[in-house]
Amino acid sequence: MGLHTIVIHGGAGVIQPSMGNRDRLDPCHQGLREALDAGFLVLDQGGSALDAVTRAVASLEDNSLFNAGRGSVFNENGYHEMDAAVMRGDSLKCGAVAGVTHIRNPVLLARAVMEQSGNVFLSGKGAEDFASRIGIPGETDSYFYSRERWNQWQEVRKVHQDPGKGPERFGTVGAVAVDQKGLIASATSTGGMINKIPGRIGDSPVIGAGTYANNATCGISCTGYGEFFIRSVAAHDVSCLMEYSGLSLQDAMRRVIFEKIPSLGGSGGMIGVDAQGRGYMVFNTQGMYRGIRDSSGRLETSIFGDP
Amino acid sequence: MGLHTIVIHGGAGVIQPSMGNRDRLDPCHQGLREALDAGFLVLDQGGSALDAVTRAVASLEDNSLFNAGRGSVFNENGYHEMDAAVMRGDSLKCGAVAGVTHIRNPVLLARAVMEQSGNVFLSGKGAEDFASRIGIPGETDSYFYSRERWNQWQEVRKVHQDPGKGPERFGTVGAVAVDQKGLIASATSTGGMINKIPGRIGDSPVIGAGTYANNATCGISCTGYGEFFIRSVAAHDVSCLMEYSGLSLQDAMRRVIFEKIPSLGGSGGMIGVDAQGRGYMVFNTQGMYRGIRDSSGRLETSIFGDP
Repeated sequence: MGLHTIVIHGGAGVIQPSMGNRDRLDPCHQGLREALDAGFLVLDQGGSALDAVTRAVASLEDNSLFNAGRGSVFNENGYHEMDAAVMRGDSLKCGAVAGVTHIRNPVLLARAVMEQSGNVFLSGKGAEDFASRIGIPGETDSYFYSRERWNQWQEVRKVHQDPGKGPERFGTVGAVAVDQKGLIASATSTGGMINKIPGRIGDSPVIGAGTYANNATCGISCTGYGEFFIRSVAAHDVSCLMEYSGLSLQDAMRRVIFEKIPSLGGSGGMIGVDAQGRGYMVFNTQGMYRGIRDSSGRLETSIFGDP
Repeated sequence: MGLHTIVIHGGAGVIQPSMGNRDRLDPCHQGLREALDAGFLVLDQGGSALDAVTRAVASLEDNSLFNAGRGSVFNENGYHEMDAAVMRGDSLKCGAVAGVTHIRNPVLLARAVMEQSGNVFLSGKGAEDFASRIGIPGETDSYFYSRERWNQWQEVRKVHQDPGKGPERFGTVGAVAVDQKGLIASATSTGGMINKIPGRIGDSPVIGAGTYANNATCGISCTGYGEFFIRSVAAHDVSCLMEYSGLSLQDAMRRVIFEKIPSLGGSGGMIGVDAQGRGYMVFNTQGMYRGIRDSSGRLETSIFGDP
C-alpha cells in the first residue's frame, strides 16, 4: 500500500526572488495551501483522486492570484479564454475544454465533458452550450475582471510583442493525486498566455501534452510555454519513459524538463505522482508555485528554490 | 539511403464489401491515386516531405468523396467544423486548427499556423481571423454542400443517437511521408463525426493523438473514433514504442491498433512511415481507404482487405 498524495502547481515562469515581498508571496502560499488541503482532505477521507484534483484545481481557479478561472489573464482582444482538462488513470477516460469565456470552473466543465458528453474535447461556444445544457451557468465578464490583471495586460501590450517573453506571461494551475485505492488522476486549468491571440489553445487541455494520467505509470500536469509542451507531448512522454524505458517518475520528469523541452528552446515545469504516492515537482524556470501533501505527513508549499 | 515514400488514408470505418459497387469505389480509388501521385511527385523531384503530405491531403480535401475540406460531413447544427494538423519530424514543429468552418484547405491553414503564427494550435473564429490576416480567404457554405452529405446527415439524425455508431460516421484523411533528405512529415484533416455536437474536437488536430512526426522514429496519421485515439495518445505511443521499447514501426502500430485501442473499446486505423521509407497501413475496422507509393516502384490503393 502506497501513500496517498496530492501535488499542485500554480504556474511556472520568471518569478524572481526580488519580486518576493511578503505582501505578495504570503497570499500565494496561502492559496496553494488552501487548494492542497481541500484536495488532501478528499484523499484522507477515502475519496477519489479525481475528486481531489478537481477540488484542488477549482480552489485555485477561484483564487484571483492564479492564472486560471477567476484570475485568468486577458487575451489580445481584451477578454478571457480558458482551457482545462482532467484525466483518470484507471480507464484513461478524460475530458477537456478549450477557449471557454464565461465558465467559473473550467476544470468542472472538463470533468462533465468526460462524464456526460460522450466526447473528450469541446471548444468555444459549443463547450459553453454544453455547459448550459447540463446546468452549469455562465459568469459575467465582471467576475473575471481584476484591476491587477488589466494593468498587466496594458503593460504587456505596450512593451512586448512575443507572447513567450516578459514577466509572468504564462501561468497555469494543476493537480495530480493518487488515492487510497490506487487511482491516479490529473487536472490542469489555465487562462493561457497573456495577450494571446483569440482561439489559441495551449498544452493544458491537450491530453498527453499538458495533462495525462495512467495508473500503470503516473499522473502529470504541466505549466510553461505551452507550444513546446505540445510539440514534446510532454506529459505522455514521461509516462512512456517510465513504462517502456523503466525510468523512475523523477528521472522521467527530469529528462523531459531539463533535456527535451530545453532542446526545443522551451521552458516550464511539471508536477507528477506515481502509483506508490511519490510526488515530484520539477521546473527549469526561476520558480514554480507548487505544493505537496501526503499521508506520511509531508506538507510543503514553495515558490522559488531548487527544483 | 532509404526509400522515399508516401502513405495516405481517406478514413476507416464500417466499409462493407457489399457497399462495393464499382460506380462508387472506382472514384474513391481514383481520388486516392491522385492524392498519392501529387504527393509522390514532390518527393520524386527532391521536394520536402512536408510539401508532399500537405499536397496529398489538400488533394483529398478538395475531393468531395472524403470527409475533410470540401466533403466534410454536417454537424448537429447543420454546418461544417473541420480540424487539421501537420508536423515535421526534424524540428518537431507542428501546427493545428480546430473547428474552422469556411476554410477550403484546413491542412494549409494548419501549416500556416506552424510557420507564421508563433503558436501551434488555433481554434474557431480565432483561427479563421488568422487565416484572413495572412490572406487565406474563406469559402461560402455552398462550397461545402453536397446533396449526398446532406442526405447522410438526415439519415443519421433519424436513425442514430450515438455519435460513434452507424455506417461511416467518421472519416478523416491523412498522409505521412519521408523525403530524399530523410525528413519525415505527417498531416491529417477531417470534417469530424457526422452530426457531432458543435465544438467537438477529435484526435486529428491533437498532436500526439491523431498526428505525430519524429525523424528519430516515424510519422503517423490516424483515423477512427477519435475520442479513443486521444485517450490513447495513439500516434505518439507508436513513436515511444519504437524509441523506448525498440519495436519496429509495424509492430508498434499493430500494438496500438490491435491491442491498445480495442482494449478501450475503440476502433480505427493508422498509417505510418519510418526513416528508412517503410510504410504501413493498419486498421481494425472492415476497411480503410488507403494508398502507398514509394521509390522502389510500389504503388497500391486499397479499401478492403487484410490490414
